[in-house]
Amino acid sequence: MLQGHQSWQFENKPVIISASSVVGPDESEGPLAEEFDIGHGDLMIGQKSWEQAEKKLLEDAATHAIERANLTKEQIQFYIGGDLMNQTISNGFAARTLGIPYLGVFGACSTSMESLALAAHIVNAGSAKYVMAGTCSHNCTSEKQFRYPTEYGSQKPPTAQYTVTGAGVAIVAPQGEGPVVTRATIGRVVDMGITDPFNMGAAMAPAAVETIGAHFRDFCITPGYYDLIVTGDLGQVGYDIANALFEKHRFPIGETEYKDCGLMIYDRTKQTFVNSGGSGCACSATVTYGHLLKQLKRGALNRILVVATGALFSPLSFQQGESIPCIAHAVAIENGGGST
Amino acid sequence: MLQGHQSWQFENKPVIISASSVVGPDESEGPLAEEFDIGHGDLMIGQKSWEQAEKKLLEDAATHAIERANLTKEQIQFYIGGDLMNQTISNGFAARTLGIPYLGVFGACSTSMESLALAAHIVNAGSAKYVMAGTCSHNCTSEKQFRYPTEYGSQKPPTAQYTVTGAGVAIVAPQGEGPVVTRATIGRVVDMGITDPFNMGAAMAPAAVETIGAHFRDFCITPGYYDLIVTGDLGQVGYDIANALFEKHRFPIGETEYKDCGLMIYDRTKQTFVNSGGSGCACSATVTYGHLLKQLKRGALNRILVVATGALFSPLSFQQGESIPCIAHAVAIENGGGST
Repeated sequence: MLQGHQSWQFENKPVIISASSVVGPDESEGPLAEEFDIGHGDLMIGQKSWEQAEKKLLEDAATHAIERANLTKEQIQFYIGGDLMNQTISNGFAARTLGIPYLGVFGACSTSMESLALAAHIVNAGSAKYVMAGTCSHNCTSEKQFRYPTEYGSQKPPTAQYTVTGAGVAIVAPQGEGPVVTRATIGRVVDMGITDPFNMGAAMAPAAVETIGAHFRDFCITPGYYDLIVTGDLGQVGYDIANALFEKHRFPIGETEYKDCGLMIYDRTKQTFVNSGGSGCACSATVTYGHLLKQLKRGALNRILVVATGALFSPLSFQQGESIPCIAHAVAIENGGGST
Repeated sequence: MLQGHQSWQFENKPVIISASSVVGPDESEGPLAEEFDIGHGDLMIGQKSWEQAEKKLLEDAATHAIERANLTKEQIQFYIGGDLMNQTISNGFAARTLGIPYLGVFGACSTSMESLALAAHIVNAGSAKYVMAGTCSHNCTSEKQFRYPTEYGSQKPPTAQYTVTGAGVAIVAPQGEGPVVTRATIGRVVDMGITDPFNMGAAMAPAAVETIGAHFRDFCITPGYYDLIVTGDLGQVGYDIANALFEKHRFPIGETEYKDCGLMIYDRTKQTFVNSGGSGCACSATVTYGHLLKQLKRGALNRILVVATGALFSPLSFQQGESIPCIAHAVAIENGGGST
């Protein structure tokens, strides 16, 4: 199933038989509010800490996706997940609750598509009947871990992004009702020397463009093959840079529609606190598993390429003067299993 | 290639065509010193920080393994790796240096076998020609991140373990000279309620026993099939608990030899500072890729099962009063590809 140098073609057509998206209060007031399965009115989700709240979002999304597939958690053979927390505790503790054999992954905000690519790979190879992929993030756990104590309410530059509170989960199976995962391209780390953690969009945009280019090279197709190409969480700054890079490299992105999940999830004219747009593992996960899969089901879209982007730095690497290495993983999801 | 509920049989016999192990000063004075490929006399490895030193260990092991396989890094299609650092920066930054398409994983000290299982899975499925799996840890980066500022020199209880400074890397290919990865079992999270981060062996032992039991159930074989079963880093405390659990569950472990990498890498009678034994991602990785693969090559061993154990907690989850969720992943490595 290898295609080109860094891509997989899933010829056995693994199906996303079920998915779920759970979000917090700000996402429940954004333009996609109606698309998410569960929206919470407060950031604590009835828990005692933000960390427990983040884990609860993930557990709820997983439980909901499993129920929607008419399965029990005992039938899910592998759970692939990760998050932004140190030692990915949200997923580790959720995997304890769920009791499903667990493969932890870390790709920062690219985790959504890294986990989906691996889930599709395992199902396509005949190595499982049901595999679950999921990820989550929480605005307050990220703020306190990556930036400043949340209570400071420190001001941010307009290039900053706002971490999505939410979780997204998908269940992949060899057959069933639903869109098909047709292809995946695994990204390389790209680092253009940006050291400002309040400008992640600029840091991540070149990684997205690199993976999108590799995808089209490996499969010998052009952007026009897809109805929509969507990046994970570049925000306005990164989105503009990505467009400029496409133009610079004479890449025919104009053949198709190009959007960014970080620009879709909030209304930046009203929710001005999000600055450049949404970010976090849950950004691409909730927009993909909430909104985009429903657009595929409605027939408003038929072929999409989701390119989740991640910044692989830590507060410590930043403090030690390192720049921000970034990565992007691309997964194609199609109605009817694609044409190739 | 699914076998039982949570295991894979690699019927296409993916081969470990090359491996490398790099260690620090304490490991270079232990009983396996001669087995490691590179031994460093100081903890800084010529770098400016311990974090850079940890990354350098991994880069050196990767470069050495690639050269030993007569390959260039451009020929390696996927790199699967992770480590203990927040946001797994050692691997993220090494993936930047190497430029290989990168799948980040996190299983704490079980990362060694999680990455090898996934590498073997990808090669077995025909999804790559060369896949590299690797991990690393450094005593000082772990001390400062998980325990106390290193300069304190705080005293430890005898149940504590000593994080191995080192890195281990393996390259898996569809054919070639070397031992074969024949099977893998992916673990569930097991949490027996232990909250003491200075007693990780006790926390992790039940996860190891759970995965070993699942492995033999899934494949309908008994421990006597293997010449050696080796756990990752239970240390003396966890090793004794694992043995007691085998006995309690009437598990016929006595049919085969059972060891623990954390007890093999140091001489606890002379290196008393290691207390209960070695730990860290590099513990099972360096003992497996350094010592055990050489024992397979010499014919001293023919069939081994490596059961890497990991504690999926963080300092924050500990501070918030959570117990320590643990996991173990098992990978079988055999001369000649096994009999099944």
